[in-house]
Amino acid sequence: MFHNDAFRALDRQECLRLLAKVPVGRVVYTRHALPAVLPINFSLDADASVLLRTSPGSDLVRAIDGVVVAFEADEFDAATRAGWSVVVTGRATIVTDPDEHARLSETGPTSWMPPQDAQFVRIESEMVTGRELRGTPGVR
Amino acid sequence: MFHNDAFRALDRQECLRLLAKVPVGRVVYTRHALPAVLPINFSLDADASVLLRTSPGSDLVRAIDGVVVAFEADEFDAATRAGWSVVVTGRATIVTDPDEHARLSETGPTSWMPPQDAQFVRIESEMVTGRELRGTPGVR
Repeated sequence: MFHNDAFRALDRQECLRLLAKVPVGRVVYTRHALPAVLPINFSLDADASVLLRTSPGSDLVRAIDGVVVAFEADEFDAATRAGWSVVVTGRATIVTDPDEHARLSETGPTSWMPPQDAQFVRIESEMVTGRELRGTPGVR
Repeated sequence: MFHNDAFRALDRQECLRLLAKVPVGRVVYTRHALPAVLPINFSLDADASVLLRTSPGSDLVRAIDGVVVAFEADEFDAATRAGWSVVVTGRATIVTDPDEHARLSETGPTSWMPPQDAQFVRIESEMVTGRELRGTPGVR
Protein backbone atom coordinates (compact mmCIF):
# COMPACT_ATOMS: atom_id res chain seq x y z
CA MET A 1 0.00 0.00 0.00
CA PHE A 2 0.95 3.62 -0.03
CA HIS A 3 3.07 3.35 -3.12
CA ASN A 4 0.64 4.52 -5.78
CA ASP A 5 -2.39 6.74 -6.11
CA ALA A 6 -4.96 4.57 -4.33
CA PHE A 7 -4.89 6.61 -1.14
CA ARG A 8 -6.00 10.02 -0.01
CA ALA A 9 -3.42 12.68 0.82
CA LEU A 10 -4.01 14.36 4.17
CA ASP A 11 -3.54 18.06 4.74
CA ARG A 12 -1.34 19.42 7.50
CA GLN A 13 -4.15 19.90 9.99
CA GLU A 14 -5.45 16.38 9.46
CA CYS A 15 -1.92 15.05 9.89
CA LEU A 16 -1.40 16.87 13.18
CA ARG A 17 -4.77 15.77 14.50
CA LEU A 18 -3.92 12.14 13.76
CA LEU A 19 -0.40 12.45 15.19
CA ALA A 20 -1.87 13.70 18.45
CA LYS A 21 -3.88 10.47 18.77
CA VAL A 22 -0.96 8.06 19.10
CA PRO A 23 1.72 7.81 21.79
CA VAL A 24 4.53 6.23 19.77
CA GLY A 25 6.23 7.18 16.53
CA ARG A 26 9.51 6.35 14.83
CA VAL A 27 12.55 8.52 14.32
CA VAL A 28 14.15 7.86 10.95
CA TYR A 29 17.74 8.92 10.51
CA THR A 30 21.16 7.80 9.34
CA ARG A 31 23.55 5.97 11.61
CA HIS A 32 27.01 4.90 10.50
CA ALA A 33 25.92 5.67 6.93
CA LEU A 34 23.01 3.21 7.15
CA PRO A 35 19.29 3.93 7.38
CA ALA A 36 18.15 3.69 11.00
CA VAL A 37 14.80 3.80 12.75
CA LEU A 38 13.89 3.91 16.42
CA PRO A 39 10.41 3.82 17.96
CA ILE A 40 9.93 6.38 20.70
CA ASN A 41 7.01 7.95 22.50
CA PHE A 42 6.47 11.62 21.82
CA SER A 43 4.21 14.60 22.18
CA LEU A 44 3.35 17.54 19.96
CA ASP A 45 4.25 21.03 21.04
CA ALA A 46 1.97 24.02 20.50
CA ASP A 47 3.92 24.95 17.36
CA ALA A 48 3.39 21.42 15.96
CA SER A 49 6.98 20.36 16.48
CA VAL A 50 7.55 16.81 17.68
CA LEU A 51 9.00 16.51 21.19
CA LEU A 52 11.04 13.51 22.28
CA ARG A 53 12.33 12.79 25.74
CA THR A 54 15.54 10.84 25.82
CA SER A 55 18.56 10.53 28.09
CA PRO A 56 21.61 12.80 27.85
CA GLY A 57 24.34 11.43 25.67
CA SER A 58 22.18 8.71 24.15
CA ASP A 59 23.16 7.26 20.80
CA LEU A 60 20.00 8.72 19.35
CA VAL A 61 20.80 12.26 20.47
CA ARG A 62 24.33 12.02 19.13
CA ALA A 63 23.02 10.83 15.79
CA ILE A 64 20.25 13.35 15.22
CA ASP A 65 21.17 16.64 16.92
CA GLY A 66 21.28 19.31 14.22
CA VAL A 67 20.28 16.90 11.49
CA VAL A 68 17.14 16.68 9.34
CA VAL A 69 15.23 13.56 10.33
CA ALA A 70 11.85 12.06 9.56
CA PHE A 71 9.35 11.16 12.25
CA GLU A 72 6.61 8.72 11.34
CA ALA A 73 3.46 7.54 13.07
CA ASP A 74 0.66 5.39 11.75
CA GLU A 75 -2.32 3.23 12.60
CA PHE A 76 -3.58 0.32 10.52
CA ASP A 77 -6.34 -2.20 10.90
CA ALA A 78 -5.41 -5.49 9.26
CA ALA A 79 -9.04 -6.63 9.16
CA THR A 80 -10.30 -3.69 7.11
CA ARG A 81 -6.94 -2.84 5.51
CA ALA A 82 -7.56 0.76 6.40
CA GLY A 83 -5.39 3.22 8.21
CA TRP A 84 -3.22 6.28 7.99
CA SER A 85 0.40 7.33 8.09
CA VAL A 86 1.94 10.72 8.84
CA VAL A 87 5.55 11.80 8.35
CA VAL A 88 7.08 14.95 9.82
CA THR A 89 10.41 15.93 8.27
CA GLY A 90 12.58 18.58 9.86
CA ARG A 91 15.67 19.43 11.81
CA ALA A 92 16.15 17.81 15.21
CA THR A 93 17.77 19.87 17.95
CA ILE A 94 18.46 19.33 21.62
CA VAL A 95 16.51 21.71 23.83
CA THR A 96 19.24 23.68 25.62
CA ASP A 97 17.32 26.66 26.95
CA PRO A 98 16.81 26.14 30.72
CA ASP A 99 13.35 27.73 30.77
CA GLU A 100 12.26 25.61 27.84
CA HIS A 101 13.70 22.51 29.48
CA ALA A 102 11.80 23.33 32.69
CA ARG A 103 8.58 23.84 30.75
CA LEU A 104 8.94 20.54 28.92
CA SER A 105 9.76 18.73 32.16
CA GLU A 106 6.25 19.70 33.23
CA THR A 107 4.32 19.56 30.02
CA GLY A 108 6.46 17.61 27.55
CA PRO A 109 6.47 13.92 26.81
CA THR A 110 6.83 11.52 29.68
CA SER A 111 9.35 8.71 29.57
CA TRP A 112 8.45 5.07 29.04
CA MET A 113 11.76 4.17 30.65
CA PRO A 114 12.76 4.04 34.32
CA PRO A 115 13.51 7.41 35.93
CA GLN A 116 16.52 9.18 34.48
CA ASP A 117 17.76 12.62 33.62
CA ALA A 118 15.77 14.02 30.78
CA GLN A 119 17.01 15.51 27.58
CA PHE A 120 14.41 16.88 25.23
CA VAL A 121 14.76 16.88 21.48
CA ARG A 122 12.58 18.97 19.21
CA ILE A 123 11.89 18.02 15.60
CA GLU A 124 10.64 21.00 13.64
CA SER A 125 7.60 20.24 11.52
CA GLU A 126 9.04 21.81 8.40
CA MET A 127 7.29 19.31 6.14
CA VAL A 128 4.22 17.35 7.22
CA THR A 129 2.75 14.76 4.88
CA GLY A 130 0.17 12.08 5.42
CA ARG A 131 -1.87 9.50 3.62
CA GLU A 132 -5.05 7.66 4.38
CA LEU A 133 -5.79 4.19 3.12
CA ARG A 134 -9.53 3.63 3.21
CA GLY A 135 -9.51 -0.12 2.97
CA THR A 136 -9.98 -2.43 0.03
CA PRO A 137 -11.05 -6.02 -0.32
CA GLY A 138 -8.16 -8.41 -0.15
CA VAL A 139 -6.74 -9.14 -3.57
CA ARG A 140 -3.65 -10.85 -4.82
CA MET B 1 12.22 4.49 25.25
CA PHE B 2 14.68 2.32 23.41
CA HIS B 3 17.49 4.78 23.67
CA ASN B 4 19.39 3.40 26.66
CA ASP B 5 19.98 0.09 28.38
CA ALA B 6 16.56 -0.40 29.97
CA PHE B 7 15.39 -2.92 27.40
CA ARG B 8 16.16 -6.46 26.45
CA ALA B 9 17.89 -7.22 23.18
CA LEU B 10 16.20 -9.92 21.11
CA ASP B 11 18.07 -12.59 19.23
CA ARG B 12 17.54 -13.21 15.53
CA GLN B 13 15.06 -16.04 16.02
CA GLU B 14 12.96 -14.01 18.44
CA CYS B 15 13.02 -11.10 16.00
CA LEU B 16 11.82 -13.24 13.10
CA ARG B 17 9.09 -14.82 15.20
CA LEU B 18 7.78 -11.37 16.16
CA LEU B 19 8.07 -10.04 12.61
CA ALA B 20 5.88 -12.89 11.40
CA LYS B 21 3.10 -11.75 13.77
CA VAL B 22 2.40 -8.36 12.20
CA PRO B 23 1.12 -7.49 8.71
CA VAL B 24 2.62 -4.02 8.32
CA GLY B 25 6.14 -2.66 8.64
CA ARG B 26 7.98 0.41 7.46
CA VAL B 27 10.63 0.74 4.77
CA VAL B 28 13.28 3.28 5.78
CA TYR B 29 15.41 4.73 3.01
CA THR B 30 16.73 7.94 1.53
CA ARG B 31 14.75 9.96 -0.98
CA HIS B 32 16.07 13.15 -2.53
CA ALA B 33 18.83 13.11 0.10
CA LEU B 34 16.27 13.15 2.92
CA PRO B 35 15.31 10.37 5.31
CA ALA B 36 12.12 8.71 4.14
CA VAL B 37 9.78 6.10 5.56
CA LEU B 38 6.82 4.27 4.06
CA PRO B 39 4.48 1.79 5.77
CA ILE B 40 3.78 -1.28 3.72
CA ASN B 41 2.41 -4.75 4.32
CA PHE B 42 4.89 -7.56 3.92
CA SER B 43 5.62 -11.21 4.42
CA LEU B 44 8.70 -13.17 5.39
CA ASP B 45 10.24 -15.59 2.94
CA ALA B 46 11.64 -18.95 3.98
CA ASP B 47 15.16 -17.48 4.05
CA ALA B 48 13.94 -14.72 6.42
CA SER B 49 14.12 -12.02 3.79
CA VAL B 50 11.34 -9.43 3.83
CA LEU B 51 9.04 -9.51 0.80
CA LEU B 52 7.14 -6.45 -0.37
CA ARG B 53 4.57 -6.30 -3.12
CA THR B 54 4.40 -2.99 -4.91
CA SER B 55 3.54 -1.74 -8.37
CA PRO B 56 6.02 -1.56 -11.25
CA GLY B 57 7.72 1.78 -11.55
CA SER B 58 6.57 3.02 -8.17
CA ASP B 59 8.53 5.77 -6.46
CA LEU B 60 9.44 3.30 -3.76
CA VAL B 61 10.93 0.79 -6.16
CA ARG B 62 12.94 3.46 -7.93
CA ALA B 63 14.31 4.68 -4.62
CA ILE B 64 15.30 1.38 -3.05
CA ASP B 65 16.25 -1.08 -5.81
CA GLY B 66 19.85 -2.12 -5.17
CA VAL B 67 20.15 -0.01 -2.05
CA VAL B 68 20.59 -0.99 1.60
CA VAL B 69 17.41 -0.11 3.46
CA ALA B 70 16.00 -0.73 6.92
CA PHE B 71 12.66 -2.39 7.49
CA GLU B 72 11.02 -1.89 10.87
CA ALA B 73 8.03 -3.43 12.59
CA ASP B 74 6.84 -3.03 16.15
CA GLU B 75 3.97 -3.44 18.58
CA PHE B 76 3.41 -1.33 21.67
CA ASP B 77 0.76 -1.21 24.33
CA ALA B 78 0.36 2.32 25.67
CA ALA B 79 -1.41 1.09 28.81
CA THR B 80 1.42 -1.15 29.97
CA ARG B 81 4.17 0.69 28.12
CA ALA B 82 5.42 -2.64 26.90
CA GLY B 83 6.24 -3.78 23.41
CA TRP B 84 8.89 -4.72 20.93
CA SER B 85 10.61 -3.43 17.84
CA VAL B 86 12.54 -5.29 15.15
CA VAL B 87 14.70 -3.82 12.40
CA VAL B 88 15.95 -5.75 9.37
CA THR B 89 18.75 -4.03 7.49
CA GLY B 90 19.84 -5.23 4.08
CA ARG B 91 19.88 -4.70 0.36
CA ALA B 92 16.57 -4.33 -1.45
CA THR B 93 16.26 -5.82 -4.92
CA ILE B 94 13.45 -6.22 -7.40
CA VAL B 95 12.57 -9.85 -8.04
CA THR B 96 13.28 -10.29 -11.75
CA ASP B 97 13.42 -14.08 -12.06
CA PRO B 98 10.14 -15.22 -13.72
CA ASP B 99 9.91 -18.44 -11.69
CA GLU B 100 10.49 -16.54 -8.47
CA HIS B 101 7.91 -13.93 -9.50
CA ALA B 102 5.40 -16.70 -10.21
CA ARG B 103 6.09 -18.33 -6.86
CA LEU B 104 5.62 -15.05 -5.00
CA SER B 105 2.43 -14.30 -6.89
CA GLU B 106 1.05 -17.42 -5.24
CA THR B 107 2.73 -17.39 -1.85
CA GLY B 108 4.12 -13.90 -1.38
CA PRO B 109 2.52 -10.89 0.27
CA THR B 110 -0.93 -9.85 -0.88
CA SER B 111 -1.64 -6.25 -1.78
CA TRP B 112 -3.66 -3.90 0.37
CA MET B 113 -4.30 -1.83 -2.69
CA PRO B 114 -6.76 -2.35 -5.56
CA PRO B 115 -5.74 -4.96 -8.14
CA GLN B 116 -2.67 -4.05 -10.14
CA ASP B 117 0.38 -5.59 -11.69
CA ALA B 118 2.66 -6.84 -9.00
CA GLN B 119 6.32 -6.18 -8.55
CA PHE B 120 8.02 -7.95 -5.71
CA VAL B 121 10.91 -6.53 -3.77
CA ARG B 122 13.11 -8.59 -1.50
CA ILE B 123 15.01 -7.11 1.42
CA GLU B 124 17.81 -9.42 2.51
CA SER B 125 17.93 -9.92 6.26
CA GLU B 126 21.65 -9.22 6.49
CA MET B 127 21.28 -7.66 9.93
CA VAL B 128 18.34 -8.34 12.22
CA THR B 129 18.10 -6.51 15.54
CA GLY B 130 15.30 -6.19 18.02
CA ARG B 131 14.47 -4.88 21.44
CA GLU B 132 11.79 -5.62 23.95
CA LEU B 133 10.46 -3.05 26.37
CA ARG B 134 8.86 -4.87 29.28
CA GLY B 135 6.85 -1.98 30.63
CA THR B 136 7.54 0.42 33.45
CA PRO B 137 5.35 2.63 35.60
CA GLY B 138 4.81 6.04 34.07
CA VAL B 139 7.34 8.56 35.32
CA ARG B 140 8.27 12.05 34.31
